Amino acid sequence: MPTLQVSLIRGYSGPVRQRLCRRLTAATTAVLGAAPEAVTVFLHEVDPDGYARGGHARTPAAAPEQTPEEVVTAFLAAMEARDLETAATHLADGFVMTFPGSGPMTRLDELVAWARGRYRFVRKTFEAVDTADHLDHAVVTCHGHLHGEWPDGTPFEGVRFIDRFEVRHGRLTRQDVWNDLALVSP
Amino acid sequence: MPTLQVSLIRGYSGPVRQRLCRRLTAATTAVLGAAPEAVTVFLHEVDPDGYARGGHARTPAAAPEQTPEEVVTAFLAAMEARDLETAATHLADGFVMTFPGSGPMTRLDELVAWARGRYRFVRKTFEAVDTADHLDHAVVTCHGHLHGEWPDGTPFEGVRFIDRFEVRHGRLTRQDVWNDLALVSP
Amino acid sequence: MPTLQVSLIRGYSGPVRQRLCRRLTAATTAVLGAAPEAVTVFLHEVDPDGYARGGHARTPAAAPEQTPEEVVTAFLAAMEARDLETAATHLADGFVMTFPGSGPMTRLDELVAWARGRYRFVRKTFEAVDTADHLDHAVVTCHGHLHGEWPDGTPFEGVRFIDRFEVRHGRLTRQDVWNDLALVSP
Amino acid sequence: MPTLQVSLIRGYSGPVRQRLCRRLTAATTAVLGAAPEAVTVFLHEVDPDGYARGGHARTPAAAPEQTPEEVVTAFLAAMEARDLETAATHLADGFVMTFPGSGPMTRLDELVAWARGRYRFVRKTFEAVDTADHLDHAVVTCHGHLHGEWPDGTPFEGVRFIDRFEVRHGRLTRQDVWNDLALVSP
Amino acid sequence: MPTLQVSLIRGYSGPVRQRLCRRLTAATTAVLGAAPEAVTVFLHEVDPDGYARGGHARTPAAAPEQTPEEVVTAFLAAMEARDLETAATHLADGFVMTFPGSGPMTRLDELVAWARGRYRFVRKTFEAVDTADHLDHAVVTCHGHLHGEWPDGTPFEGVRFIDRFEVRHGRLTRQDVWNDLALVSP
Amino acid sequence: MPTLQVSLIRGYSGPVRQRLCRRLTAATTAVLGAAPEAVTVFLHEVDPDGYARGGHARTPAAAPEQTPEEVVTAFLAAMEARDLETAATHLADGFVMTFPGSGPMTRLDELVAWARGRYRFVRKTFEAVDTADHLDHAVVTCHGHLHGEWPDGTPFEGVRFIDRFEVRHGRLTRQDVWNDLALVSP
Repeated sequence: MPTLQVSLIRGYSGPVRQRLCRRLTAATTAVLGAAPEAVTVFLHEVDPDGYARGGHARTPAAAPEQTPEEVVTAFLAAMEARDLETAATHLADGFVMTFPGSGPMTRLDELVAWARGRYRFVRKTFEAVDTADHLDHAVVTCHGHLHGEWPDGTPFEGVRFIDRFEVRHGRLTRQDVWNDLALVSP
Repeated sequence: MPTLQVSLIRGYSGPVRQRLCRRLTAATTAVLGAAPEAVTVFLHEVDPDGYARGGHARTPAAAPEQTPEEVVTAFLAAMEARDLETAATHLADGFVMTFPGSGPMTRLDELVAWARGRYRFVRKTFEAVDTADHLDHAVVTCHGHLHGEWPDGTPFEGVRFIDRFEVRHGRLTRQDVWNDLALVSP
Repeated sequence: MPTLQVSLIRGYSGPVRQRLCRRLTAATTAVLGAAPEAVTVFLHEVDPDGYARGGHARTPAAAPEQTPEEVVTAFLAAMEARDLETAATHLADGFVMTFPGSGPMTRLDELVAWARGRYRFVRKTFEAVDTADHLDHAVVTCHGHLHGEWPDGTPFEGVRFIDRFEVRHGRLTRQDVWNDLALVSP
Repeated sequence: MPTLQVSLIRGYSGPVRQRLCRRLTAATTAVLGAAPEAVTVFLHEVDPDGYARGGHARTPAAAPEQTPEEVVTAFLAAMEARDLETAATHLADGFVMTFPGSGPMTRLDELVAWARGRYRFVRKTFEAVDTADHLDHAVVTCHGHLHGEWPDGTPFEGVRFIDRFEVRHGRLTRQDVWNDLALVSP
Repeated sequence: MPTLQVSLIRGYSGPVRQRLCRRLTAATTAVLGAAPEAVTVFLHEVDPDGYARGGHARTPAAAPEQTPEEVVTAFLAAMEARDLETAATHLADGFVMTFPGSGPMTRLDELVAWARGRYRFVRKTFEAVDTADHLDHAVVTCHGHLHGEWPDGTPFEGVRFIDRFEVRHGRLTRQDVWNDLALVSP
Repeated sequence: MPTLQVSLIRGYSGPVRQRLCRRLTAATTAVLGAAPEAVTVFLHEVDPDGYARGGHARTPAAAPEQTPEEVVTAFLAAMEARDLETAATHLADGFVMTFPGSGPMTRLDELVAWARGRYRFVRKTFEAVDTADHLDHAVVTCHGHLHGEWPDGTPFEGVRFIDRFEVRHGRLTRQDVWNDLALVSP
């Protein structure tokens, strides 16, 4: 039943506009308990000349090139490929990550060294990626199962994991990892 | 810069309306990269007589009494208090929960039995609760640290945990738990 | 899909507002070919202080007490009851009516005299009443079947009829009647 | 005084948009008793990307190519030209027509046979065409005068008629005809 | 033709709302060259709960109790009544006034002393009061004619004057006075 | 906090649209006491086909080519350049001007004759130009200082002046001038 009329300056891409429609619909159904079918969103775009705040025209902030979940999956893909250079481009200053038993680590090579004695490699199969929007950051969690090889080459699979990321201005500021490797490690 | 004008039938409570404003603002800033200060939301309420879809007046769905995060924290509080009866009121049919090494469990007394040999009790200190809105369900994750006592009465504390819940129509359909207890158990 | 946001000064009754919603929905579905379910109407009422045209507050026109179709059915009921006084209150100056073979008549007693030799009485069973809105008048047509008695007391029934009325400012300005009495009159 | 703001997906033709404006104005003046000059309509079009219902972009229903009154007048023109093939394209399955004394007929050739003994030909002069919008169909009535020739070639003219049509999804489902031919036939 | 829909938090008085309607209409006709009759303004008020900027409800600024022109006329009335105390309540810190030949003066008693040798008293008849709105201040000009008495008791009248005031946050920050007294003083 | 949504027919130039945004912002801040930063304006343009008043599409009035303050400064520039022909193009029928001691004058050559004995030439340095919008006219005041030469060639400078103009439909209908020349003339 609720209808959302969004007024904004022209210039966002089609995918960004559709993403905005979807997120607003989800927020509305979550809060009001309305069926999604009952929520309608219209984006009304005006020319930059047809807008003023405080009596002055404004240039809108550029929409982020990547969604928080795209930043996270790009980072994880680079880590699986051991492409630390690419992975590092997704990190904000002050990035901190914590793995089961690792304590806080701040550099990716620190993580690599820490992991070396624990497994040869590990791959993630995602069951879901969820993004929680906050006013100044987003929290992305992804969970699913790990498979890989122990240091002696023995394979393992079906090990539950969850990663929680905080994303600010398109960069990762924090990663927290939980999994069941300790329960199954040889 | 974007302004959201929401038209809806009069009748939602003040807290529900403010919650809607906040969620819509968060969704908008997340997608557009706009500063929160630049996002304005107005809720325009009309009388039931002043609304029609398909030519007929409608009664809006009742807004959920509890937010998904309130459902989750009420459930966890009841579980800590061993009030299984109250806790069970928050579960949907088909509820499934998985703890580290437990495999899927569907009944709360199953969980109690499973936990008995593992710890005397456990308490949660929350660092954050995050809610991701989907069109037909919400995902709530909460993480922080556990403290409690091992079966022999030895205390423990500072053990990292994360719980992931799926909430549909105000009931929990799924709980997945990860923690570092296996790393520190005696 | 289309959403109509109507801004108007507070003060119309609930039935008038719902009637407006329905008519706007019907007009929209007719023109756009949209399903009624896809058309949403919101009436946003403002206080008289919150409105100006030409820089001045305005008092809205009073909504008509009766819809055009209510005027028509009230007139026809009064005529069937031979209550010419009441019936005449629904007529505008310059009212003209034409019955099959009657030529133009302007007074109700003229009609009564004309009908006297044709039937003792006649009653209408309505199949439908349809109203076409024009900018400055409405056209109401009603059709169905007649039953009654011929001058000699013989009954008749099932005779098709249609009446077309023009209504301006809540009064009838014109009535045109067609029926099949000529085909069945003794 | 009322202002209508219609939000819809871009793509309707200029004539369709003007027709929508006119119909909405007529409906508003009819219900509220407002002067037409006091009713303002704006159609705000959004790009398909700037719209979502239920979180998904939609393709609007195509506006009917012909208005109900255009369908009716095209059908009547084809019938006058004895172009039954074209006329039949305007009929829905289940079409029923009733002429004075004819009883229900469903096929155009049935009508032609029925009319053969009644007149050589007949032409309509329209005084008005009126359309009443309902949620799922429209009723079009046209009335005026007939002229033509009786079977023996004698001309006639000035015979009152009215046709009532029901139109659904751009096709005629029903035609009901009344006229005064019985009063003047030789 | 233009329609202005203003969304604001409920709570402004009726006169403030009508004043806003008038000023917006005047601004629109001035810029667009539209006839005042063609400009419609609606103020849509929402409850404080139905509003958020930056995700937070806001309390709107209190509307000034007096319009800039009311501040000016109250100040001038107090000065004519020699009620310097009341007059001073309308002055902002840093107030500066300039009369013909006076140079800048900052205190009202300075003005009284300066005027003493020039006239016994002076009264203003206003022809017009005009207010120009700027983003952070208003300029009020009033002009008309002076009458009064010269120091020797001789009366004068019909002397042209204009006063220009700058008003910020409801206080006068500047007054500039011109008149033709020098042309007619004895 | 207030948001203004202006609906108007497409076709105004970018500068006109920005001017409208600024004026509306100034009017709003002046009346409501809101900070300029809290006032947002959106101009929503519709195609001519997407608009109707009284059921008919309209052609909007052309926006004035020059703002009232541009008309005033163009007139004053032409007068300083002694280009009476150009200056006269800015005058409406019935234009009246009054200078200190001049009484009403209606023709520019009248003014030139009147001024001849008073100064050789005069130039204006503007301190501010202020425009007050009324529904059917604007008042423009400009004030500052004069410099020039007396009839004997002696220069003068720093003489305070203010000019008040009334502008209707882009033409000057009235000019009233005050200055301190009488106080300093030799």
